[in-house]
Parts: sequence; C-alpha cells; structure tokens
Amino acid sequence: MIQVNLTNMQSFVTPNYETELAARVRDAHDKLQLGTGAGSDYIGWVRLPADYDKDEFARIKAAAAKIQSDSKALVVVGIGGSYLGARGVIECLCSANYNLKKKNTPNIYFAGNGLSSDQLSEVVELIGDDDFSVNVISKSGTTTEPAVAFRFFRKLLEEKYGVEEAAKRIYATTDRARGALKTLADEAGYETFVVPDDVGGRYSVLTAVGLLPIAVAGVDIDALMAGAADMMNTCAKPELAANPAWQYGAARYELYRTGKKIEVLAAYEPNFRFMCEWWKQLYGESEGKENKGLFPASVEFTADLHSMGQYIQEGERHLFETVVRLGASNTTNVIPFDTVNGDGLNFLAGKDMDFVRQQAMDGTLLAHVEGGVPNIIVNVDKLSAYSLGELIYFFEYSCGISGYLLEVNPFDQPGVEAYKKNMFALLGKPGYEELRAALLAKLNG
Amino acid sequence: MIQVNLTNMQSFVTPNYETELAARVRDAHDKLQLGTGAGSDYIGWVRLPADYDKDEFARIKAAAAKIQSDSKALVVVGIGGSYLGARGVIECLCSANYNLKKKNTPNIYFAGNGLSSDQLSEVVELIGDDDFSVNVISKSGTTTEPAVAFRFFRKLLEEKYGVEEAAKRIYATTDRARGALKTLADEAGYETFVVPDDVGGRYSVLTAVGLLPIAVAGVDIDALMAGAADMMNTCAKPELAANPAWQYGAARYELYRTGKKIEVLAAYEPNFRFMCEWWKQLYGESEGKENKGLFPASVEFTADLHSMGQYIQEGERHLFETVVRLGASNTTNVIPFDTVNGDGLNFLAGKDMDFVRQQAMDGTLLAHVEGGVPNIIVNVDKLSAYSLGELIYFFEYSCGISGYLLEVNPFDQPGVEAYKKNMFALLGKPGYEELRAALLAKLNG
Repeated sequence: MIQVNLTNMQSFVTPNYETELAARVRDAHDKLQLGTGAGSDYIGWVRLPADYDKDEFARIKAAAAKIQSDSKALVVVGIGGSYLGARGVIECLCSANYNLKKKNTPNIYFAGNGLSSDQLSEVVELIGDDDFSVNVISKSGTTTEPAVAFRFFRKLLEEKYGVEEAAKRIYATTDRARGALKTLADEAGYETFVVPDDVGGRYSVLTAVGLLPIAVAGVDIDALMAGAADMMNTCAKPELAANPAWQYGAARYELYRTGKKIEVLAAYEPNFRFMCEWWKQLYGESEGKENKGLFPASVEFTADLHSMGQYIQEGERHLFETVVRLGASNTTNVIPFDTVNGDGLNFLAGKDMDFVRQQAMDGTLLAHVEGGVPNIIVNVDKLSAYSLGELIYFFEYSCGISGYLLEVNPFDQPGVEAYKKNMFALLGKPGYEELRAALLAKLNG
Repeated sequence: MIQVNLTNMQSFVTPNYETELAARVRDAHDKLQLGTGAGSDYIGWVRLPADYDKDEFARIKAAAAKIQSDSKALVVVGIGGSYLGARGVIECLCSANYNLKKKNTPNIYFAGNGLSSDQLSEVVELIGDDDFSVNVISKSGTTTEPAVAFRFFRKLLEEKYGVEEAAKRIYATTDRARGALKTLADEAGYETFVVPDDVGGRYSVLTAVGLLPIAVAGVDIDALMAGAADMMNTCAKPELAANPAWQYGAARYELYRTGKKIEVLAAYEPNFRFMCEWWKQLYGESEGKENKGLFPASVEFTADLHSMGQYIQEGERHLFETVVRLGASNTTNVIPFDTVNGDGLNFLAGKDMDFVRQQAMDGTLLAHVEGGVPNIIVNVDKLSAYSLGELIYFFEYSCGISGYLLEVNPFDQPGVEAYKKNMFALLGKPGYEELRAALLAKLNG
C-alpha cells in the first residue's frame, strides 16, 4: 500500500493546517467523486480502474500478443500524455535499458514526440531489417509531431510490406468515433483502440494509450489495473487518516501556500526517471495556470546528491522534496570484503546494497530537513506492476485534490495552444495569414 | 561561434542593466583571469584548453585505442562531475542510444553513480560475456558510490581475467600523488590519469575525467579541445560586446535579481538531455549556497511543450528560459506528401524537418515571451565535437562570472558533505558513533 509520511514537513507549516483545510479537501474530493467541479467532463479516470472497457482490454492483450509474435520492434508514435506514461511504466518496470536487454518481447522505440530529424533517422536505423509494427496514438490525428512521424513510419511500413500487410501492423489509438486518425484507420482497416472522451492525455496511461505499449513490453497489465483499482478504493475514503491522496494533496498545497514554489520529486532508482517526467506533466499541466502552481522538478538520487544536492541543501529556500521510496530491490548485491581496504569501506563488507541505500535515504532526509527543506515521503511496496498501478492512481487522485485546492481547473491545458498557433502561422498553414504577418514582424524586430 | 541573443529578455529588466553591472562583471572576469576571487585554488579550468598536459592527452588517446581494440564494453565508474560530463558529451555527439547502435567502438556503461542494486546487476548482465575494461574515476577513491561499485567490477574483472590481466584493463583517473585510489593503482599497476588539484569535479569534463570515456566512444577529443580553446580566447576578451559569457552571466544574474528564481534550460534535441544534467550540476552546485541562487531545471522540446509547456506558458511567473539552439541536423528528412491528407499537413509536404523545428522554436519563443517568460537564446553552430567544446567552455566561464556576481564562492560545495556525514553515521562507520546516536534518535522520533 502507498503510505505517505508527513513527519518531516510538519515543522514548516501551521501545526493544524490539516484541520483548517479539512472542509476544502472534502469539497475537492466530492468534486472528483460527484463530477461537480471545474473540468468535470474529464474525470473519467476517477472510476477507470473499475469501469474500463473489458472487451477492449482483451483486445489490447491480443494485439500485444500478435505484435510480440510478428515484430521485433514496436514504434510508438505519440507526444505528451500519449508518450510519457507508457515510457515511464516500461522504463520503471522493465528498465531504462529495456531495448538493450536480451528478451522475448519487441524493442520499443518512441517517436513523434518532438521534431528532431536525427532522432527520426535514428529510429529508422535502429529498426534496420527487423520486422516491426506501429502504434500511433493521437486523439485528433492532427497534432503536428506525431502526425509528421506517422507519415514517415507508415510509408516505411508500406514500402516494406505493401499497403495491405502494413495495415495489419498499424494500431491506432484515437478517438472513438471521429477525427483524422479514426477516419484513416477505418478506411485503411487498422485495428483501433480508444482515447476516451472523458480522460485527458496526462491521465490516460491506464487506457489503451498506455496499456498497449506497456503490454507489448511484457508488463502484466492486469496487475497494473488491479493496483490502480485498489488505490481507487482507498482514495474514495472520505477521511484524512485513511486517504493518502488527501494527505499528500493537502500537504503540498499547504507548502505552496507558505511560499515553497518548487516541488522536487526524488527517487533512488535510475529507472524511475521517466515516471518523474510523467509526474511533471501530470502536476505541471494540471496546476500551472492563472500565474500559479508549484513548479515540478525531479532528481535521481544518489546521483544528483552530487549535482543538485548542493542547491537543495543550501540554495534558495523556496523548495520542498517529495521522495518516492520504492521497496526492496529485485536483486541482492552483497558488498565484497577487500583485504587492502584502501577505500576504507570494509565496515560495509557483507552488507547488501539495499541496506546502504536505506541509510543514504535516511541520512539525506535528515540533512535536507536540517537545511530547511520540508520533506514528504511516499512509501511504495516492492516495485511491481501492481504497486506501480497503485502509485499512478495515487498521484492522479492527489493531483485532482491539489488542483481543486488551488482553485484551478485541473483538467484543462489552455496554455498548450499558444505555441501551436504560432508554429502553424510560421509554418504557413492556410488560415493563419494574419497572425503569420504579425509574428514575422515581431521576429524581424 | 556561440552567439547569445538577449532580445527577448530585455523587456523584463531595467534597460541599462548591462551598464549598471559593467564594473562588477569586469571585476568577476578579473577574478577568473587573475585568480583573485573566492575559491581561486580551483580555477585551473580557465586556462585548461591551452595549458593541458599534452603527454597525458596522448596517453588518453592511446588508452582509448587500446580499450577499443580489446574491449566490447567500458564500465565508467564515477559520480557527479566524474559522471555527468562524459555521459552528456557522449549522448549529445553519439546519441542517447549509443549502446544500441551498430558501431566499431565499445558500449559504455555508467556505474557507481548511485546505490541502486538493480542497476548494478543490470550492468553486469548487459556486459554478459563481452570483453570489458573499467575506468574508475575518483579523486580520493573513498567516495562511497563509486568505491562500492569499483569493488564489484574489479572483482568481476579479476575473476574473469585473473589479477594480473585485470590490472591491464583498469584505468584509474584520480589524484596525481595521493589518496586511496592512487595508492591502489600504483600497487596494482593500473594506468592512471590525473584529476587536477585546481579543477573541481563539475568543471572537469575536459580533463582525463571526461576525455577518456569520451575518446573511447570515438569522439574527436582534439576537436573538442580546439572548440574549448577558441571559446577560451573569446571569453578572455574584456568587453561585453565581444564576450558571450559576460552577456549570458550578466543577463541571468539580472533576471534573478528581478525575482526570476528558476532558469529552465531547453533544447530541441533529445540527445541533449544529459548535457542539461551536466549544466544543472555546474550551475546548481556553483551558485546554490547561502540561501540563494537560481534553481536550474531543464526541458526537452518539443516533447515537453506537451507536458511542462502549460506551466511555462501560464504558471507562476518566477522563471525564465535559456534555449540552446543547435544548428542544422546531421540528417535531412523531407515530409512526404499524402494523397488522403487526413492530418491536413500537406502544406508541409516537401519541407525538411529542420524547417518545421525552426518554426516551432520561433513560435514557442514568441508564445512564451508573450506569456511573461523572459527568454535567452544561445545559438550554437551545427553540432560537432568542436562546437560542443565551445559550448562547454562558454557555460563554465559564464558560471564563474555569474557566481561572482552573486557574491558566492562558485568553486566550493560545502553542502554536499551533509548527507554523506549522516550516511556514514547511519552506516555505522567507525568514528561517527556520537552522530549516529543523535540521528537514530531523530529518526525514531
């Protein structure tokens, strides 16, 4: 079970902040449970771990098995919420070096998440002569980055296999009924999966958006959903003592209110890097509006204790830390005895690495709190599909609570359009002529 | 050449801030050039691109050639400045997927940069039966993370090749004359390279610390040093108009002074991710002290325009952006025409990806400035060992300027000791008994 430890942030806030916030937390909770808050068209994720489409779920598993059987590589084309969740889960559960490992499942390459020409070429080069499939993920089918990448990879597939056979290797995760990608998929005969109307991109990792690539990597998606479902039940409990999402959501809001403007998410596991990126989108995009919101940052410990550690310890006091403590490692590595003992570490000989890591966690905690950094600990059971499912839902629900406390709509992202509009104008998209002229005037000073 | 464009931060600061800061910038510059400032024992990096040890440089190249000839893998054991620079340069110039690529140079695995048991086991698994060598990088030889990892990998080498042969596959980059690793290396007969006394870890990428792994990956280290040397000459010029490091150092200091507390480093290239991590250490560790300093964060565009983009556009207005604009890509990818045009992107057909990326850069720039985010552009020539050498030196020199403007010692890192001390105490290191008791009392609270 997820367990939130707030002991080390208490001295930085009013002792009774939880009591003071209680009514507002419950109100935020009711908005999520009853759909009475801002953006309530997009709270399909709240009940998703119970109410998901079981038939589609079975089709996801079947498609994953087919891809595993006929492909050495899967290219996942998507950006934002159609990218970070799948990458986060795969790296966390299968390793950031998943593609390097010997395994019975396909390599997974993420594409269409940027405009780097070299990255595009590299994916083509890495696929080489391998049989491959494509999972293109886009609600509308018109988002520039994935749409451009899909043009390349569809062409590549069609050249390699012919149009008909290529169609059997393309899986489109898109709108249920309409849009450019849905239309194309229906005409071309691609198998399609649904981006639900009531689940925004950053909350979509437990829909087909995340689940198909995750299943192809061999992750047990039943366990992932089971963990999320159990956490859904926990987060539905309307009492602070029983609800870790209430505890975390209220604590981070209170820290923000007292002037901590940056939340640094830390884990002691390199494979957690892209879960941090997923978390940044979840919180940054949900709360960063109306000129407010915590700035989400992340570090990888202990590596970054030797880079960002100095700043965290002694820099500007405008931050707090949230540390995800994952349970026991999968491996045991006992530190060898060394007769010479030049490094003076024989006092650790015979100890397991996990023991050393645990002391680093506790030592760092005390050092940072002493330095003026409030610390929240999120304890997670031993890493597994189940416990990661719990963690995902926990962060989602906390984000909803926290966003409503901040009095923003946690489910829109109006600011994302600004760069797109400018880009379209500068690219010469028909219909943007006036804006284009204005922007060019600005650029040319 | 590096070119700094400050056009889009001007409206956020006093128009004549450069004039107001001129004397202080020159003073900071003199401290770096003459060694008269705080921490001046550690400014060996200032003249390094000219004054480096040419004999050792030749030995680095010879060792790299030997490793390339007798190893399929190199394990680089180091943390902080003994890790991030090499990884940053290798990922930037050879790809973040370097190990996945078909090539004539060894795979490179970074270890000893944390305490993850699973990561350690994974590197062992990935090496498999491949012939390998180890480059252990540690000034003292007693830093816990690399020292622990080195115990494992030395043992592995000795078991595989025997003690004598293993010694020929271990390269120690360490203190010139003393310390645990130097002593061990001399006794065992490892080839050694020098971590200079007057160059701190975060400024050490152009010493043997970074150069050996970088050379093993096949990067032209002559070109890297040549770029740095040319930038050294540029940064030595005592006038604002000719000195990009003065421009950037003054601008970011002024933005900080006006209340921007976070600097977000952005690049439009996924392979730049670990150069951002290197940059974060450089700036965070140099400036984050005495309860001040810009908080360094980073994003990867356009991917993160679909995650952190919302926050940057509309969140709390306490940040500015520094965008590293790399020149033309190595590849050309022309967007295909599509008869169906469901995605509506045929207006881009026939255009190169770099063209689209350029418009995304300009469109984003205008959107963010409009949203209240000051923007600094650092223009870099087409990415190469030479231009990256320029960029590295540029960031180092700017950091020295900026740190002295902030009136801190940019070359110490007193805060890094805090967690280490606690960790040693909790680990039961002899001599820490009293602290241990105090910490345990706190933990059991």
